[in-house]
Amino acid sequence: MSPEQVPSLTVYGYSVSGNCQKLRLLLEQLGRDYRWVEIDSAHGETRTPEFLAKNPNGRVPVLELDDGRVLAESNAILHWLAEGTEFLPDDPWQRAQALGWMFFEQYSHEPYIAVARFIRGWTPLDSPRRAAELPRCHERGHQALAVMERHLQSAAWFTGPGYGIADIALFAYTDVAPHGGFDLDAYPAVRDWLTRVRATRRFVTMPDPAPENAALLAASTT
Amino acid sequence: MSPEQVPSLTVYGYSVSGNCQKLRLLLEQLGRDYRWVEIDSAHGETRTPEFLAKNPNGRVPVLELDDGRVLAESNAILHWLAEGTEFLPDDPWQRAQALGWMFFEQYSHEPYIAVARFIRGWTPLDSPRRAAELPRCHERGHQALAVMERHLQSAAWFTGPGYGIADIALFAYTDVAPHGGFDLDAYPAVRDWLTRVRATRRFVTMPDPAPENAALLAASTT
Repeated sequence: MSPEQVPSLTVYGYSVSGNCQKLRLLLEQLGRDYRWVEIDSAHGETRTPEFLAKNPNGRVPVLELDDGRVLAESNAILHWLAEGTEFLPDDPWQRAQALGWMFFEQYSHEPYIAVARFIRGWTPLDSPRRAAELPRCHERGHQALAVMERHLQSAAWFTGPGYGIADIALFAYTDVAPHGGFDLDAYPAVRDWLTRVRATRRFVTMPDPAPENAALLAASTT
Repeated sequence: MSPEQVPSLTVYGYSVSGNCQKLRLLLEQLGRDYRWVEIDSAHGETRTPEFLAKNPNGRVPVLELDDGRVLAESNAILHWLAEGTEFLPDDPWQRAQALGWMFFEQYSHEPYIAVARFIRGWTPLDSPRRAAELPRCHERGHQALAVMERHLQSAAWFTGPGYGIADIALFAYTDVAPHGGFDLDAYPAVRDWLTRVRATRRFVTMPDPAPENAALLAASTT
């Protein structure tokens, strides 16, 4: 596309959310210009009428084009942004495998590893969710990490022969899995892959949680 | 592709699983030949060493090509099978929206609507999961149905201008949502869409649950 044809992009996102960080990382690595509108989903900003008009499902991130069209779901946004770039292979079977890993991430990984992080850092220390949900989050999250470890014993990346959007999707919450109470020492191939992702060109890291969330993470014992 | 180039396909699936029914429906509507290998995931058949060698994540469906290559994740399989057919639009933005709905299905719909059906029909009447999980499944499942209802008030389909794989993905468990204790009377646009899907060419319905599961569904009161 010529520069005049490239639509301007606005991301509505919560900077310390892994799902939102996925978009920031890909946009930075693509060298795309974009506007970031901070939406504090932990304080109800995804439940306002204005936000629900953009995404009736009430979740960040949302991508908005300059003509007002919107797209929800972090991994669908990654896929749209990466089309025709080095971050998504051309080969149909490799593309299918990458998409498979991205569905794995949303179904078998994020609901446990990201949710454990949220409960430990974004709910009070006396929240009943800690006892009720963390054990299952840890059990299922470790299962997901074991599946990743097994894959990485015979492959360098999740997207295909090179780094790309399936790696970005899985990196976001795996990198901060310790916030959820996950020790990654048992997953050496995962740790090596995290290091390889951090070394990719134009890599940017997710901001640290706010002090109140960092304090809750530090005080969490389970 | 010429007939000699079309790979033969094997689906490993549990026939009364909506995630597996998605593949049967698309394959029938594409007129593709395929072999179906029944895997009773409710009785541990996804946890055998043979099955875990195909999908380390231990889930059906899995698609296998004649050269032994495998692909997991129902919606990634739908996307691969539909490429280049009428079931997936060519327009990049429409494709992105379709994929957005497919991620919505796996993240915001299936974990509540399908899981409610499983708990009511595939766990004993005295299972602690009924009291512990069904209320949240019903709350979140109704939120997902409301998002679908809103979309269908101004659009006929989820895939784009026509019926396709996002509709197939969302139809599978919405059609059997009453098994999960969901009354669809409050969602007239969803009901009309279900009727439109059932009228598509070569539509095939999911088999009824086995008698023991049908009895549990009938005896469920929450």
